[in-house]
Amino acid sequence: MANHSFSVIQTCPQTQARAGELITSHGLVPMPVFLPVGSQATVKTLTPDELKDIGVPMVLANTYHLYLRPGIAIIEKMGGLHKFMAWDKAILTDSGGYQIFSLAPLRRVSDEGVTFRSHIDGSQHFITPEQIIEFQESLGADIIMALDECPTYGESLEKVREATERTHRWAERCQKAQKRGDQALYAIVQGGVFPQLRRQSAEHLASLGFAGYAIGGLSLGEPKSQTFDMVEETVALLPEDKPRYLMGVGSPEDLLEGVARGVDVFDSALPTRVARNGALFTWSGRFNIQNSAYRQSEGPVVSGCECYTCRTFSAAYLHHLFSREELLAYRLATIHNLSFIQNLMQKVRDVILAGNFRSFKDNFLASYKTTEEEIRLSQKQRWLKSRHSRE
Amino acid sequence: MANHSFSVIQTCPQTQARAGELITSHGLVPMPVFLPVGSQATVKTLTPDELKDIGVPMVLANTYHLYLRPGIAIIEKMGGLHKFMAWDKAILTDSGGYQIFSLAPLRRVSDEGVTFRSHIDGSQHFITPEQIIEFQESLGADIIMALDECPTYGESLEKVREATERTHRWAERCQKAQKRGDQALYAIVQGGVFPQLRRQSAEHLASLGFAGYAIGGLSLGEPKSQTFDMVEETVALLPEDKPRYLMGVGSPEDLLEGVARGVDVFDSALPTRVARNGALFTWSGRFNIQNSAYRQSEGPVVSGCECYTCRTFSAAYLHHLFSREELLAYRLATIHNLSFIQNLMQKVRDVILAGNFRSFKDNFLASYKTTEEEIRLSQKQRWLKSRHSRE
Repeated sequence: MANHSFSVIQTCPQTQARAGELITSHGLVPMPVFLPVGSQATVKTLTPDELKDIGVPMVLANTYHLYLRPGIAIIEKMGGLHKFMAWDKAILTDSGGYQIFSLAPLRRVSDEGVTFRSHIDGSQHFITPEQIIEFQESLGADIIMALDECPTYGESLEKVREATERTHRWAERCQKAQKRGDQALYAIVQGGVFPQLRRQSAEHLASLGFAGYAIGGLSLGEPKSQTFDMVEETVALLPEDKPRYLMGVGSPEDLLEGVARGVDVFDSALPTRVARNGALFTWSGRFNIQNSAYRQSEGPVVSGCECYTCRTFSAAYLHHLFSREELLAYRLATIHNLSFIQNLMQKVRDVILAGNFRSFKDNFLASYKTTEEEIRLSQKQRWLKSRHSRE
Repeated sequence: MANHSFSVIQTCPQTQARAGELITSHGLVPMPVFLPVGSQATVKTLTPDELKDIGVPMVLANTYHLYLRPGIAIIEKMGGLHKFMAWDKAILTDSGGYQIFSLAPLRRVSDEGVTFRSHIDGSQHFITPEQIIEFQESLGADIIMALDECPTYGESLEKVREATERTHRWAERCQKAQKRGDQALYAIVQGGVFPQLRRQSAEHLASLGFAGYAIGGLSLGEPKSQTFDMVEETVALLPEDKPRYLMGVGSPEDLLEGVARGVDVFDSALPTRVARNGALFTWSGRFNIQNSAYRQSEGPVVSGCECYTCRTFSAAYLHHLFSREELLAYRLATIHNLSFIQNLMQKVRDVILAGNFRSFKDNFLASYKTTEEEIRLSQKQRWLKSRHSRE
């Protein structure tokens, strides 16, 4: 696939981390890479120009959301997704499998496809794997995803096995349905938290020969050690010469853990979502700008940070904007968090190339205070319960 | 006052319109000029860079809002308002008189000053004209305003006379309280909708010799013909060599009517507020992008418009963002509306200089469909009742 040439440039001698690059018809994507989430054809609060300033080479959009609003046909009529959202760099569209199985009420799944109601207006829809490919061909992203069935965390082995096997059959149908030659189709490995299912899923999908492989169905409320156990089980059976994409992971510490296990691509709404709650990344951890300690802080959010927010405004100004619920607050915080993550991924790539990723990771994690596991899981559960269409 | 040199460059032969310029220590301000409203030290949704791209030479901030949050002392500690909001062009701070008399509950006014409760937390405050000057000297805007008592529309002649006379005494005290020599102090003419009070107020304040004169207490729900009658009564008695500032006026048609009557400076939250409701200015009137007619509009909001929004996105994309309540929507709409107004004021100045303002105004008003008087007044009343601290 001429438009999707992936190569591994350097592998870490001590971990499975790798530096690579992906050539797309919308520019080069250095890997490992983090994709900001723009489900509704907009990375919340930001313009494409700001994303470029931050250095973002690829964003994620969501087929489920765009199918419901504004509708695939409208985006096609507007010249495709790149033109619609005025983004001339790379785009990956998720198939919407995860959204259908988590956001949409009243689902009925069969081998043929899935029936669900829109979470927006309750209208009923039936979608097949073939249609999901058709939709993504109309949208025109550089990377498209096969439709998967994504069970929630806590389902039985039998239920997860069934979903995993259906995901395999759907992946094959997606592969056959593909007409455009200029989009890379990735399959999604499922298998929940069951090692044997993960292995079967990775092996089976790898045997079908996709342009890339995603690890789905994780970061759904399971303990973090289990997340990364499953990543290890999966990556071990994926081809070395194809990108590996861990879906829904995006905290600084998890990005490092994922990279160490050989993952090349990540996406998550976390950096942008927590930004809008005032939670900002620093090299020593995440802190909340709404804390009264920042009321009179003359310095920037992170001293030495080169993002627009830190170059231009004091932490006190950001604190003021959040306290007044000013819309500019959410945007300045988003710019900072995405810049932080982008900067982190750039450094990660540099140290892989220089051969010292392991010590960089250890040093980072030693000084970065992560949210405690228990708090993290309860936050995650709350969010999974409360979230709606927004991301 | 070296930092506040105002000159009239050209006067319209057929109307009272005038083109001028004001030199401030934060840049040259071509007049007539419209000031975007940034009550809380932020023009809602925009960065200072975007305001500069639009060509905005001066913004308005509000002493009442900034006194309550984050507090004058904090902004002073942060190096003043320009630095706090990262805006190196001109700033005018309103005294907060209008806000105290419209937003804050439980007011008690005496000659000494005014007691009110914060609309945010109910805390009680007492403020004198001298303190308002002190606050504005700490904030450090280029133009500062005297404290005025602003009666609501519908008050009796007696009540308005009392408020107007108190405004005069306060203006004089503000003048005496001024310590900094680098800020221009403007007085505010009151007098409600009573011609004789307007005339007395203009004459009296003019006799005290201020750097500029504002026309306050209008655009508060009175019929538009009355607004402009009062503007005429007032302007007739103001000195020719000083800027005249009509407060709270900002629709395209009203700007032209104000300019035609010799006004140099305007401010209003209208262009930014209606933008956030999806109402966008075009040369044929204001329309709402949320209308389903725009769902499939491939062209920009205004064809030929050179603002970032119109250069970059289709009307269909904007419609989509509004439909999903995406935060980017409010910002793109704000950019368009402020660009439109800035562009209009630029054109107005050009045609005054070229000697054909009158025909420009007639042509503009002939093709610009204004909101009908009755609808306009009921919208205004609704807004006056419902608004809180936001602008």
